Amino acid sequence: MDTMTFVLFGGTGDLAKRKIYPALYNLFLEEKMPSTFSIIGLGRNESTDKDFQESVENSIRTFSRRLSDNGSKIEQFLTTIRYSKLDARNKEDYQRLLQLVKDREEELNIPENRLFYLSVAPEFFDVIALNIKESGLGTTNGWKRLIIEKPFGQDLKSARLLNQNLNNAFKEDEIYRIDHYLGKPMVRNLEALKFENPVFQALWSNRSIANVQITASETVGVEQRAGYYDQAGAIRDMFQNHMLQLLMMTAMHAPKQKDANEIRAEKRKVLEALRPLNKDEVGKNLVRGQYEAGLVNNKNVPGYRDEPGVRKDSQTDTFIAARLWIDNQDWAGVPFYIRTGKKMPEKSTRIVVEFKRNHNDIYLNKDPNLLVIEINPNESVSLILNSKNPVNGELEPINADYASSQLDVPDGYELLIYDAIRGDSRFFAHWNEVELSWKWVQPILEAFDEEQIPLHGYTAGSNGPDAANRLLEEDGFSWWLDKSSIKEKQLALQA
Amino acid sequence: MDTMTFVLFGGTGDLAKRKIYPALYNLFLEEKMPSTFSIIGLGRNESTDKDFQESVENSIRTFSRRLSDNGSKIEQFLTTIRYSKLDARNKEDYQRLLQLVKDREEELNIPENRLFYLSVAPEFFDVIALNIKESGLGTTNGWKRLIIEKPFGQDLKSARLLNQNLNNAFKEDEIYRIDHYLGKPMVRNLEALKFENPVFQALWSNRSIANVQITASETVGVEQRAGYYDQAGAIRDMFQNHMLQLLMMTAMHAPKQKDANEIRAEKRKVLEALRPLNKDEVGKNLVRGQYEAGLVNNKNVPGYRDEPGVRKDSQTDTFIAARLWIDNQDWAGVPFYIRTGKKMPEKSTRIVVEFKRNHNDIYLNKDPNLLVIEINPNESVSLILNSKNPVNGELEPINADYASSQLDVPDGYELLIYDAIRGDSRFFAHWNEVELSWKWVQPILEAFDEEQIPLHGYTAGSNGPDAANRLLEEDGFSWWLDKSSIKEKQLALQA
Repeated sequence: MDTMTFVLFGGTGDLAKRKIYPALYNLFLEEKMPSTFSIIGLGRNESTDKDFQESVENSIRTFSRRLSDNGSKIEQFLTTIRYSKLDARNKEDYQRLLQLVKDREEELNIPENRLFYLSVAPEFFDVIALNIKESGLGTTNGWKRLIIEKPFGQDLKSARLLNQNLNNAFKEDEIYRIDHYLGKPMVRNLEALKFENPVFQALWSNRSIANVQITASETVGVEQRAGYYDQAGAIRDMFQNHMLQLLMMTAMHAPKQKDANEIRAEKRKVLEALRPLNKDEVGKNLVRGQYEAGLVNNKNVPGYRDEPGVRKDSQTDTFIAARLWIDNQDWAGVPFYIRTGKKMPEKSTRIVVEFKRNHNDIYLNKDPNLLVIEINPNESVSLILNSKNPVNGELEPINADYASSQLDVPDGYELLIYDAIRGDSRFFAHWNEVELSWKWVQPILEAFDEEQIPLHGYTAGSNGPDAANRLLEEDGFSWWLDKSSIKEKQLALQA
Repeated sequence: MDTMTFVLFGGTGDLAKRKIYPALYNLFLEEKMPSTFSIIGLGRNESTDKDFQESVENSIRTFSRRLSDNGSKIEQFLTTIRYSKLDARNKEDYQRLLQLVKDREEELNIPENRLFYLSVAPEFFDVIALNIKESGLGTTNGWKRLIIEKPFGQDLKSARLLNQNLNNAFKEDEIYRIDHYLGKPMVRNLEALKFENPVFQALWSNRSIANVQITASETVGVEQRAGYYDQAGAIRDMFQNHMLQLLMMTAMHAPKQKDANEIRAEKRKVLEALRPLNKDEVGKNLVRGQYEAGLVNNKNVPGYRDEPGVRKDSQTDTFIAARLWIDNQDWAGVPFYIRTGKKMPEKSTRIVVEFKRNHNDIYLNKDPNLLVIEINPNESVSLILNSKNPVNGELEPINADYASSQLDVPDGYELLIYDAIRGDSRFFAHWNEVELSWKWVQPILEAFDEEQIPLHGYTAGSNGPDAANRLLEEDGFSWWLDKSSIKEKQLALQA
């Protein structure tokens, strides 16, 4: 690994404290940081290096998944950290930052490899990138990289504009766009599950698969993010990015090589084969909902419009369910149902693959086989099979499952930052993916704006509006393993 | 269910006490016996009904998997039982038995449906069947059925002779040949697992399967059965019947109907497609072994020839491993490895299906996928898959498994007797199966007799002679999940 400087914009922010410092520290503990490195935190307020190091130590002690046995490791880590005050629009601040970066590079005798992590509000992406370029920070005789996190624009047009601006300062292969779902270990495992297992290879197409259901449900509402969320809605906050990433990872073919270009080329092909939605077809293939007052985890919760910071007449979606078609040879005829929502009965991200039934008059297998990949918060792989009950001889579902028993799983940010430091961009969103996602979503956004699509209310604590069930019923299917039906399934498994 | 009379030859024997009475009683508790029935126990000694009923009560209280909450059920059950002294060669005894059967039929007002269970040494099969006919016991205006248990002959010739003799008194569809492996719930579940699960249907052929390994290992030696076993060996005791039954159940195609004729026709087709072994090919495809002194479950045990009742120069096999080929379209090119032995490291009957590796230069999946069906003593279905370790990113095997948690599983004899009472012969060995099995095994027996096949010694507590490993190595395979390698696998799973 190359020695390098890690420059963190938004170094006093919430994400930095909860995720980024603990991630860097855990990588350090596991000797996954370069032999020599420099970390520079940036914030709007004045601070000494010492005070800042103390606040970083606090973050680590509060949020790190582990600490070393003795204090010496954390002391050692903190010595790598410096602080600099920076106002994103103030050119002098960038000059001071440049001087600090150079001083540290000289002091440590390391090349000008610089990783800029923009943990800031998206309106600052452009200006910071521009100032990195203009200040000379981006003019290095080593490599430079930029890490940013969603939102990458609010629609196709703004995303393209943002990308143009970033491209003035960084080339595409220098930009690492974090989609934190690609940091989740089970998502990173999909490649192995699909391509390293001949049994799944044999099954992974429309020959055997009836439909695929990808769900990301949350029990929380908008919490402190109402200002942002009420503008974005589930369609921008979850669907355009995370859900389409899960779709790509599920449906992509094996790459010719295990490198970032080939992998991301295969992902892009999925989006290219995704049947475009015309504005007038959105209503037939997509259901939007907004939660109303209800009961979540046995607590009364208010409706979305009564959340602090939300407009009383808000038309924002907190739930999206959609039917998508991938028009290629392997997936023709297989609907992909994607669903995400807030204030649902359980927190769960999972992929359910429903296999086709037998074409056989004798063995009707009324319950289909299911492959269930739980991504979050639990990690498991389950195959639900039909089996004969030894007592009564009746068919019943059994669940052959593997649940990860590893408690010490790295956080997604650890994996992603480690990748970025090594220059491995396999699990970062390429601009092509971002652009094609916005392109596919654009008619939906327009249909929403023109109020063509009904906004269904759904009771908080339910699995969303009934229209989302009808979407599958039209095709003769239903959502599997929703919390209420999980119970039924478990009862059946115990019977 | 038809009301009927259950006539038990060998009614004072060990199997009757440990298995048959408890099975009948459990069926009675579960209301799986006919509304009215009569049980008649036969033995060589004089006894009163009352004394006999007491000894049956003792058996049930000792061996039944459950008793009713109060004593009234067992009392009720015992009232159905009568005893009659019978010497298998004494015609008068059969006349007395006939009178008793008729009296009870009249008393209970039930038709002449008679089930004869021959729980006796095989040398009595012929004479009892003949006397049933000649005494008039077999001349009924209802149905009659005969249950017998292995050995069905000692070779092809004696089996054919026995069958001819039985056929003088009973037609084929009146004969219920118990192979108690067909009473094991997981064996009876194979049909559902294979044919009710589209994912396995898609995989169940030479397109996806590399080889199949069927193992029945025992930790015990010959115990009290040396007299019989030293004549029979593993080839007759296990291989010709149970192991070939497991082979048929594993490889058979879906029947056109779920009835006994169609199912047994499909089983027969497997044996018909089994590539015949010429005597001079036996040595290339079969390994025989005999255990020597060693360590089983941490106890020192003697070698086979030092077991009480075994000849000091015995050439009897206590271990057989063989490679079989099924020459039909689905199984061409797939070796079936079958192995059974005594004094091995664990008691286990299992089927391991090893799937073919990918043909892909990128995803080499060095560990193949395995489907493991544990039949005995544990019941489970496991799929061993490749997965990415979330901590170090390395590929590792994971085990998606379903283990039966049902403690109250019926004993095989319950299931089989229930089937015989209902006239359901699906899980009994048809004469065709028995004959074809003997036919296939006959060259092996002859090669053994002519001492053409080396008898390898193996240490008690090992997995058999090394030659059994070489048999698979020749084809580029190895036995999976042997006890020592299970540990390695589990370590790998935990790593």
